[in-house]
Amino acid sequence: MPQPALDLTLDAPALTAALVDFPSVSGTEKPLADAIEQALRALPHLTVDRHGNNVIARTRLGRAERVILAGHIDTVPIADNLPSRLDEDGVLWGCGTSDMKSGVALQLRIAATVPAPNRDLTFVFYDNEEVAAHLNGLGRVADAHPEWLEGDFAVLLEPSDAEVEGGCQGTLRVLLRTTGERAHSARSWMGANAIHAAVPILNRLAAYEPRRPVIDGLEYREGLNAVRIEGGVANNVIPDVCTVTVNYRYAPDRGEAEALAHVREVFADCGVAEFMVDDHSGGALPGLSHPAAAAFMKAVGGSARPKFGWTDVSRFSSLGVPAVNYGPGDALYAHKRDEHVAIDKITHCETRLHDWLTS
Amino acid sequence: MPQPALDLTLDAPALTAALVDFPSVSGTEKPLADAIEQALRALPHLTVDRHGNNVIARTRLGRAERVILAGHIDTVPIADNLPSRLDEDGVLWGCGTSDMKSGVALQLRIAATVPAPNRDLTFVFYDNEEVAAHLNGLGRVADAHPEWLEGDFAVLLEPSDAEVEGGCQGTLRVLLRTTGERAHSARSWMGANAIHAAVPILNRLAAYEPRRPVIDGLEYREGLNAVRIEGGVANNVIPDVCTVTVNYRYAPDRGEAEALAHVREVFADCGVAEFMVDDHSGGALPGLSHPAAAAFMKAVGGSARPKFGWTDVSRFSSLGVPAVNYGPGDALYAHKRDEHVAIDKITHCETRLHDWLTS
Repeated sequence: MPQPALDLTLDAPALTAALVDFPSVSGTEKPLADAIEQALRALPHLTVDRHGNNVIARTRLGRAERVILAGHIDTVPIADNLPSRLDEDGVLWGCGTSDMKSGVALQLRIAATVPAPNRDLTFVFYDNEEVAAHLNGLGRVADAHPEWLEGDFAVLLEPSDAEVEGGCQGTLRVLLRTTGERAHSARSWMGANAIHAAVPILNRLAAYEPRRPVIDGLEYREGLNAVRIEGGVANNVIPDVCTVTVNYRYAPDRGEAEALAHVREVFADCGVAEFMVDDHSGGALPGLSHPAAAAFMKAVGGSARPKFGWTDVSRFSSLGVPAVNYGPGDALYAHKRDEHVAIDKITHCETRLHDWLTS
Repeated sequence: MPQPALDLTLDAPALTAALVDFPSVSGTEKPLADAIEQALRALPHLTVDRHGNNVIARTRLGRAERVILAGHIDTVPIADNLPSRLDEDGVLWGCGTSDMKSGVALQLRIAATVPAPNRDLTFVFYDNEEVAAHLNGLGRVADAHPEWLEGDFAVLLEPSDAEVEGGCQGTLRVLLRTTGERAHSARSWMGANAIHAAVPILNRLAAYEPRRPVIDGLEYREGLNAVRIEGGVANNVIPDVCTVTVNYRYAPDRGEAEALAHVREVFADCGVAEFMVDDHSGGALPGLSHPAAAAFMKAVGGSARPKFGWTDVSRFSSLGVPAVNYGPGDALYAHKRDEHVAIDKITHCETRLHDWLTS
């Protein structure tokens, strides 16, 4: 089935609506990647490359500085919230409006309307951001073609409510397992209850005081939480295994090894039988003191805020490219049935980005 | 497909093997109930009644006392442990050998070989003991034909390792639910963690000191345990619900209302948002001081032990019939892949029951 081509002459809100109405749940991005590639190849000032469903377009103007505008084109599953709907208050509703097709629309608008930017531009459109880290298109491009991602500074157009969000916190997920011995619950003294054995872990979690460090003037907030607990064999059996899944969100002044050591230490004397790292993505320092970041801050105005959630700015950071989040969406509504974006935030961000790249 | 008739002239171990090799997992008892009914109807000294897959056979000799020999004919699911296998040490292996086809074999052997017992006899063979309480055949007969279950004393041939086990403990299962508020785990302070809220419940469980009351000379042992715990929405979400399933096994000096009140009190100040009774079966006092029970104890010898698990003696007790567990099986191997019974326990119990009913 041929998909409609994307019309880059639409204004940014209308282009956002067109992108939202072009479903691209993680794993099904190919038609949208095709349409984006097709639209970009029609722009003579851009060189376009493709790897899988990831599309990279670059100017080659020989400017002193190169900046990257990046965004993922996939969304979480649709939740009865398509097609998009623009209400009378200027709010566009639908899956992906905030996270992050409004951001992708701005990438495409800048690509189409700024043929001679004051800095060389790299546009990165990538897939599979909303699913397992090893599938992430940005990571795959970084592995296969790291030269495509070279640059002095990156803006990730993730939802940040039209304010600059610096860096991001790291996230570490560990499974803490306690063990015991099964027995019939009518003769519980013949067994050892693994759920009861998890009490020290939970006490430690409940009593934990998270840090709130200030980095580059931004106050971060950590968190250490049980996100899952699971134990039980049958209603009449003393359980022999209980697993607590703990998520540590940590400020970017802490490296990955340090974060892991901290969590090990927190639970060191809690009777943990198995300590398993389930997932780990380091944070990224805000990097706002970098000249390119400072210039960006000055151009877009406002004051930066800390980013609490993990985003791909961390991936750019690990490639040596300072990066910030700056997009019109609102992260509080991402992944929700009532996801939406305010049209005036889209146009506001477009104006600021345009000014930055043309002044 | 016609099923083979049961041959009640086999000795008790051979009859046990024949019954084990006649699969009757809960819900599929009909062919075995048919075979038992057919075999009993061939015995002229018995009156046979049937309700569903429950078969009741009675002598009508006008004796001063009537005793009931009862057993369930269903088993838990087969676990690669059929057909039965008799090893060189005189141990019969297979699903149902202990729980409780060796007991059912003794019921059938007594029915066939004691035509003129010194006490009137009622044999009860019932279905669906291993599944939900409302399906239990003994309960269904008690509702539909309570007069079939009249008697002065009942012996339940549940596995008791050839020792008399008096009464049984009650079992109460409650769900304790804590609640919180969801939030992204990167901004955990915006939510309230329901797993952390379960800490007071688990602390109370871990610190609980169970009672060990002595009743009729038997020491019971209570237990209060988490048998399940469940909480969690997604790996990056602060969970808003956590459910702890608690099983209270209590000695039969405590009634149902008292047991429930006790558990409510234990968790009274633990922040429980919902307290739900999931299942409740009261215990049964050992009743060993009853003359019929005392005569039985004297005839079979040994000293009684407390029964920790819940069995249908409680159902007889609530019908006003004192009851004990006495069977050749070993409860420790019930419901296990390596379920087995010692042949000499079968013949030992048969001799004792025979002596009691003919002396």
